[in-house]
Amino acid sequence: MPVVAVIGDGQLARMMQTEAIELGQSIRLLAGAPDSSAAQVAADVVLGDYTDLDDLRTAVAGASVMTFDHEHVPTEHLHQLISEGVNVQPGPDALVNAQDKLVMREKLRSIGAPVPPFAAIGSVADARAFSDSVDGAVCLKARRGGYDGHGVWFPEPAELESLVQELLDAGTPLMAEKKVALVRELSAMVARRPSGQVQPWPVVESVQTDGICTEAVAPAPDLSPELGQQARDLAVTIAQELGVTGVLAVELFEYRDENGEPAIAVNELAMRPHNTGHWTQNGCVTSQFEQHLRAVLDWPLGSVEQTAPVTVMANVLGGQTDPEKPMAERMLDVHARFPQAKIHMYGKTYRAGRKIGHVNMSGEDLGRVRREANLAADYLVNARWADGYTA
Amino acid sequence: MPVVAVIGDGQLARMMQTEAIELGQSIRLLAGAPDSSAAQVAADVVLGDYTDLDDLRTAVAGASVMTFDHEHVPTEHLHQLISEGVNVQPGPDALVNAQDKLVMREKLRSIGAPVPPFAAIGSVADARAFSDSVDGAVCLKARRGGYDGHGVWFPEPAELESLVQELLDAGTPLMAEKKVALVRELSAMVARRPSGQVQPWPVVESVQTDGICTEAVAPAPDLSPELGQQARDLAVTIAQELGVTGVLAVELFEYRDENGEPAIAVNELAMRPHNTGHWTQNGCVTSQFEQHLRAVLDWPLGSVEQTAPVTVMANVLGGQTDPEKPMAERMLDVHARFPQAKIHMYGKTYRAGRKIGHVNMSGEDLGRVRREANLAADYLVNARWADGYTA
Repeated sequence: MPVVAVIGDGQLARMMQTEAIELGQSIRLLAGAPDSSAAQVAADVVLGDYTDLDDLRTAVAGASVMTFDHEHVPTEHLHQLISEGVNVQPGPDALVNAQDKLVMREKLRSIGAPVPPFAAIGSVADARAFSDSVDGAVCLKARRGGYDGHGVWFPEPAELESLVQELLDAGTPLMAEKKVALVRELSAMVARRPSGQVQPWPVVESVQTDGICTEAVAPAPDLSPELGQQARDLAVTIAQELGVTGVLAVELFEYRDENGEPAIAVNELAMRPHNTGHWTQNGCVTSQFEQHLRAVLDWPLGSVEQTAPVTVMANVLGGQTDPEKPMAERMLDVHARFPQAKIHMYGKTYRAGRKIGHVNMSGEDLGRVRREANLAADYLVNARWADGYTA
Repeated sequence: MPVVAVIGDGQLARMMQTEAIELGQSIRLLAGAPDSSAAQVAADVVLGDYTDLDDLRTAVAGASVMTFDHEHVPTEHLHQLISEGVNVQPGPDALVNAQDKLVMREKLRSIGAPVPPFAAIGSVADARAFSDSVDGAVCLKARRGGYDGHGVWFPEPAELESLVQELLDAGTPLMAEKKVALVRELSAMVARRPSGQVQPWPVVESVQTDGICTEAVAPAPDLSPELGQQARDLAVTIAQELGVTGVLAVELFEYRDENGEPAIAVNELAMRPHNTGHWTQNGCVTSQFEQHLRAVLDWPLGSVEQTAPVTVMANVLGGQTDPEKPMAERMLDVHARFPQAKIHMYGKTYRAGRKIGHVNMSGEDLGRVRREANLAADYLVNARWADGYTA
């Protein structure tokens, strides 16, 4: 059986291990710590630093393929490993588009993919000019390293210049894009094999709170078939044109165009399993984690048929304080109220705003499934029922 | 998070690890070898011997509960561990009914559960008397240690006495039961918590070949609602009366009674996840492996709603010779032909008659799902399509 070496030790690697086990494999991890989310549950763990070339070499020795839990491995190391014969999926030329937000937008524009107006910001003057061109509707982004709302700013016009100066002084490479008057966010996910097969999942609605995904609804409610097809086609095109392998998440803005018609533009790309794809674990014949392993191994992709009319994923995000009731007891309370709830926990310690788990719930009635999934996730955070329910 | 200590290192423990990961746990294993099916995929492994009390103590130290991948832990060790405060689920008084086929039948008869006529066989005279009472329709069984057709004999009348003498001389404790003129085999599975909650799954048809389960069809085709309810009720009653905790599999004979009406009798019991429950991994909201963990932890049980009208499990049993094509390539071929096939491999080496994996397939058309699941499993064994298909 092939060994997939996964660089990173977070929940995405952890959930890859789940699927690897059933495929008769077991992933090799490059983990930063033995008690990290993924290292807790895997037998084959190399402890090391993903920015250290030798540690990367140790982790991939004898593996069939190297893939990622995150996008932060230095590009030059990937090129070096490839020159040494390592099979890196996705490769650095694709991955750079998930690492650098400006490179990504330039690439997307070059292939005709819809993106909001954007510009490189190397100076206060650049920022002023861009702001003028978009009537002050500026979204400022760090080119690299952002996640979950970190590295994204929506400055008022009066504070734009000082913010840009401050960030540039701190050495943060910047870009800006036009703030979109969005209707909602969507996510179009796809898996692609090195040999070319591409398989898109149904498009989901992604609900963000303070820049963090809190909920995904599959399929996206009230999405017109045309726009859904357009989103899937776009994800397929991006995967092909950028040479992505494994799972690609295309985070999309849905907005109204100048004619008031629904339209989409790309917000961000991720080249790995993604929070908006967790619903596939319980709502789809093939989960994103299994599909990622199959895709990077260049195995035929699995069916993405839904196993229920509606599946909702609600994130469990650590709250400001960790209630006294132990997490295991909260899970027990959720299981008692909702026997159909699928709770996925990451083995992570509780911390405000940290993703420590998620709940998937499936059914036929969108409103009910959504309400119950969110009640369950909220209970795991707060240890009390938001609707006043008592057992 | 609680730690579940699992005694044994086979595929059942391996598939418990899959579910433990998603519940935010990771099982502690007592494994015989580091490369065993389950030890390959778990971080927390104690190497040792399940017949050694000290090894058992090491494995359960600090765990919330001790449970099993098999029934072979000596009863006296379990009593000793309980006296030391270990939470053993299922407990030895229940488990003995899955360890000793005579004890089990006596217990079942005492609670009014249907079993074929049976007798203890301590001598050739016992065998002769029992044979006379059932018109020679004798099934001879070793009281302990049998599995997959081992320890079961269907002697011709002429060879009965010599076989019994031979087995008794070899020190094999024996029993006999009347050979049932069965229509087919069924399996009624249930999970039960120490605090009492019981949840039965839909009854499945179990297809045996040479005493080994080769296929399970869920739900059992053409099973009358009355007989299905009777089978589920029987499994619930047995779990309650025997004090079983965790998953219980009640293997059943379906036969025609003296009036020609369909009836059931108990064949065997297993107190752990069971081959005939593997279909739940892909055909049910809660798999038997997740349910077993929840049940032994005394957590509320999950929904057993089916996620597809029909799910078929076909075992991958090593054939006489292992074809040249590597197993990974066989999987790839199956995935290419059947994108909906869910292949589960156990990380075991190929050996004739050994269970090395299984395939689950779901759909609406029973005949088609069954055919395709069996084609897939057969291909994984033989590396050729039984129906002549060429890619």
